[in-house]
Amino acid sequence: MTTYALGLDYGTNSCRALIVNLETGAEVATCVYAYPSGEMGVVLDGRDPNVARQNPADYLAGLGEIVRGALAKAVAADPDFAPEKIVGIGVDTTGSTPMPVNKGGTPLALLPGFEGNLNAMAWLWKDHSSYAEAAEITALAEKMRPQYLAKCGGTYSSEWFWSKILHCKRTDPRVFEAAFSFVELCDWIPALLTGDPDPLTLKRSVCTAGHKAMFASAWGGLPDKDFLNALDPALAGLRDRLFDTAHTADVKAGGLSAAWAQRLGLPEGTAVAVGALDAHMGAVGAGCADGTLAKILGTSTCDLLVARNTQTLPDIPGVCGIVDGSVLPGYYGIEAGQSAVGDIFLWFTNNLVPEAYGTGPAMFDKLDALAAQMKPGATGLLALDWNNGNRCVLTDVRLSGLLVGQTLHTKPHEVYRALVEATAFGARMIIDRVRQYGVRVDEVITCGGLAVKSPFLMQVYADILNMPMKVAASDQTCALGAALFGAVAGGAFKTVEEAQKLTRTREHVYTPIPENIPAYEKLFALYTRLHDAFGLSAWSGSLANVMKELVALREQAR
Amino acid sequence: MTTYALGLDYGTNSCRALIVNLETGAEVATCVYAYPSGEMGVVLDGRDPNVARQNPADYLAGLGEIVRGALAKAVAADPDFAPEKIVGIGVDTTGSTPMPVNKGGTPLALLPGFEGNLNAMAWLWKDHSSYAEAAEITALAEKMRPQYLAKCGGTYSSEWFWSKILHCKRTDPRVFEAAFSFVELCDWIPALLTGDPDPLTLKRSVCTAGHKAMFASAWGGLPDKDFLNALDPALAGLRDRLFDTAHTADVKAGGLSAAWAQRLGLPEGTAVAVGALDAHMGAVGAGCADGTLAKILGTSTCDLLVARNTQTLPDIPGVCGIVDGSVLPGYYGIEAGQSAVGDIFLWFTNNLVPEAYGTGPAMFDKLDALAAQMKPGATGLLALDWNNGNRCVLTDVRLSGLLVGQTLHTKPHEVYRALVEATAFGARMIIDRVRQYGVRVDEVITCGGLAVKSPFLMQVYADILNMPMKVAASDQTCALGAALFGAVAGGAFKTVEEAQKLTRTREHVYTPIPENIPAYEKLFALYTRLHDAFGLSAWSGSLANVMKELVALREQAR
Repeated sequence: MTTYALGLDYGTNSCRALIVNLETGAEVATCVYAYPSGEMGVVLDGRDPNVARQNPADYLAGLGEIVRGALAKAVAADPDFAPEKIVGIGVDTTGSTPMPVNKGGTPLALLPGFEGNLNAMAWLWKDHSSYAEAAEITALAEKMRPQYLAKCGGTYSSEWFWSKILHCKRTDPRVFEAAFSFVELCDWIPALLTGDPDPLTLKRSVCTAGHKAMFASAWGGLPDKDFLNALDPALAGLRDRLFDTAHTADVKAGGLSAAWAQRLGLPEGTAVAVGALDAHMGAVGAGCADGTLAKILGTSTCDLLVARNTQTLPDIPGVCGIVDGSVLPGYYGIEAGQSAVGDIFLWFTNNLVPEAYGTGPAMFDKLDALAAQMKPGATGLLALDWNNGNRCVLTDVRLSGLLVGQTLHTKPHEVYRALVEATAFGARMIIDRVRQYGVRVDEVITCGGLAVKSPFLMQVYADILNMPMKVAASDQTCALGAALFGAVAGGAFKTVEEAQKLTRTREHVYTPIPENIPAYEKLFALYTRLHDAFGLSAWSGSLANVMKELVALREQAR
Repeated sequence: MTTYALGLDYGTNSCRALIVNLETGAEVATCVYAYPSGEMGVVLDGRDPNVARQNPADYLAGLGEIVRGALAKAVAADPDFAPEKIVGIGVDTTGSTPMPVNKGGTPLALLPGFEGNLNAMAWLWKDHSSYAEAAEITALAEKMRPQYLAKCGGTYSSEWFWSKILHCKRTDPRVFEAAFSFVELCDWIPALLTGDPDPLTLKRSVCTAGHKAMFASAWGGLPDKDFLNALDPALAGLRDRLFDTAHTADVKAGGLSAAWAQRLGLPEGTAVAVGALDAHMGAVGAGCADGTLAKILGTSTCDLLVARNTQTLPDIPGVCGIVDGSVLPGYYGIEAGQSAVGDIFLWFTNNLVPEAYGTGPAMFDKLDALAAQMKPGATGLLALDWNNGNRCVLTDVRLSGLLVGQTLHTKPHEVYRALVEATAFGARMIIDRVRQYGVRVDEVITCGGLAVKSPFLMQVYADILNMPMKVAASDQTCALGAALFGAVAGGAFKTVEEAQKLTRTREHVYTPIPENIPAYEKLFALYTRLHDAFGLSAWSGSLANVMKELVALREQAR
């Protein structure tokens, strides 16, 4: 009998359900629900641009909609399909997205007395209001517990668990006092489905606990009480109401509760897997494996790698998260990324390209076509991809963009090409860094719109990374990954790797063009020089060669 | 009796006559003639973009047109005026613009057998076809005669006399052999008017002889024969058919010949002054004086300064021309400049500003208006103004543009502001350099379209240079300067300084705004750091502070 799995993907603006055929990998049906609250699902505060929250009511309302919608579509699309054939449910969400909850696991935002209070809602991953607390945690850890920092690239982020909770405690003590515990969204949805969202017993994900909550078995779970006490005695008290174990997402969180089974139209007891973060499950859905980097290429990028945990992986400076089991059970998950990629192209085209190049997608098509006609080095330009700071390997938000080599003849498509190349050089810095620490990288599987929309960009990446670039076949790798974890938790496969046989890449593989390599090697050496000169306080040297070598490369290419 | 003087200004695209009232300074009449040959007067070679020549026939045809035209207009405009009241004629032209001539001083291009031969024409100032010869001359002078280089900032240019002649000899020996001598355009026009263009006796201008022909009394005039012989024995032979004295432009070259008097409608014997270069006479027409820098602000800039020659002025590294008497008799003339200013703004607006900002002059008005609303530092940006290389103080054509500090929110008017500031920082580098060598600079008088069109730019310059910025009243300072030299040569004034009492500046003076100074001092320190890091091979240091200080300045300003 053909079986199916259900993946639930909670994103920034909407949530989605995907039903996958576990024999063929076919994506049978999908259904999306746009969060109604705030601006495209994000609740903002006009007085503080750092604030980004979500209304937990949206999660609940969406859950019923997307599951029932996908089931109905699947029934219509596939005569073999029936809801009873779903063997498991997997869940991925954004994160770190913690919510203050009461003793029963109900988000405070849903309780009387907290209506409209943004601090009682979910603190969305991209909320940066706790930047001061993040700096404080980093400074304290440097002094007291450097090992905590080593696992997250040397800097604790304002996007993460403890920064947000400490900021809540400081700025809205009423919410903090009312919160029995804090639960990540990716832990709360599975717990909700199994009918037991008790904060003390619900199964927490190692993927989000990992570096984001400074959780590691090496030091006995969460940060120790002395450390938390030095931050704020209230955090030390909270520690007892959090968790001391965390799980990989192939583990069954429980069976679907009777209430939710009825509400969704699924059999009671259907296996629900432990949750994980969207990027990590997206990497699994893309086909991430030992030696295969999964790159989620969007406005920013997330690079995910795995390395077997049969021997210890050293800390990798500047790489923000290394967590055992965060991607695949039995492997260290290594999370890296660039803080702006597509966003840089959007900034450039929205602000600095005349309408003569078209508008919207047509503008990108024209820029791609013109840029693709040039040889590496022919622009005479070189850029740094730091318009939104550098997330990896410098982990410094106060860095900015740079463009060098412009003449009186420089054209928009040449600048565009330089910006695309810059993001590829940034990607290569990350790969070079993890390789130095013994992580294998043989090929890249990309997912996200850019990978499909811009063959020009993909070829530049293949040439600069000097590796094959593949494109995931699925447009919904996160929901697909979640479904695969649901399938494993439901017993359809023994391992996640076995389930990954259902993942596919598109036919066309971008391979490096040998004659492009030498010029890019020279350009990357210049990029590295600028990267170090502007990015490293310890660097000292000369840059007098940069402009002249760019001119020489341009003359060579033309 | 009110007297008048006639100024003749030979530019790149046209020539112009101006008649000036020597009592009031009023510009009574002007007449322009656009050269008919080539593209806007410049004869190009499709196979070599470095070639830029002019047809001497255009000079001749224009001469009659502009003088007769101006005289007719003056008669119509001013009841007091009569051609007999013109006491002297002054001439300025572009340069170095040498022409091969026969024994009688006729340009070869006008002789049978050389029709259409570009090498027999005038080699326009901006012709760069002799770049290899320029490098060869620089290299030889470094070894044999470093004193020659010291006067021209350390690098001999492809735009100058000897480079062009050597290139002619190498690439078109027939023209070189047929040339009895070579004469600069600014020497040829006055000689023509006096009826004696004999290359051996016509009065040569010290202004163009100066560093451009490596002429200095300190080493006995032109470069010595040993040096020229080492370049090419033919140049040593040519030296005897050139000149060994050179004159300031207050000296009378001769009286107007009967033939030209009749042709132009002026009295025979009218004083004709020795010629000089347009920028230098423009500086005089603008009001250049001890402590007053004249800045001709256009697509590129020319900065002219004077310092009394009562004591020796040291060589100033990176400043391209120091010549006794090149601007004002009795003063060293100091010539500096930036290879692109207006050209950088034109490049940016033509290529990287969306039509939403308007087109043409309206686009500049909008960019000016938006940029003017920002405080210094508020853009978070910093640029280098080297899109066309750096003429001064680095004298390096293989440098290029740079922009740093861009985020995902950077707007076109912010980049525009950074580019304007960059050109002002470049101007300040020059001023700081000449001051270090004892040259006084108290104020700037600008001329050229930008000075009138952009109050925003003028204010930025006043703040960054921390000096008053004035604007010359005349729109034709070159022709005005030429007329003043004609007046002195004709005896209307004893000195050029006395004649300069007729020059005026506009009422509005841009003065530094005190609260803008501190931020600009910080930005200029960062500019200097980038300037040295990318421009000096000997520099070594760190740049890690640059992006962070730009962020700090932005936060302070906003």
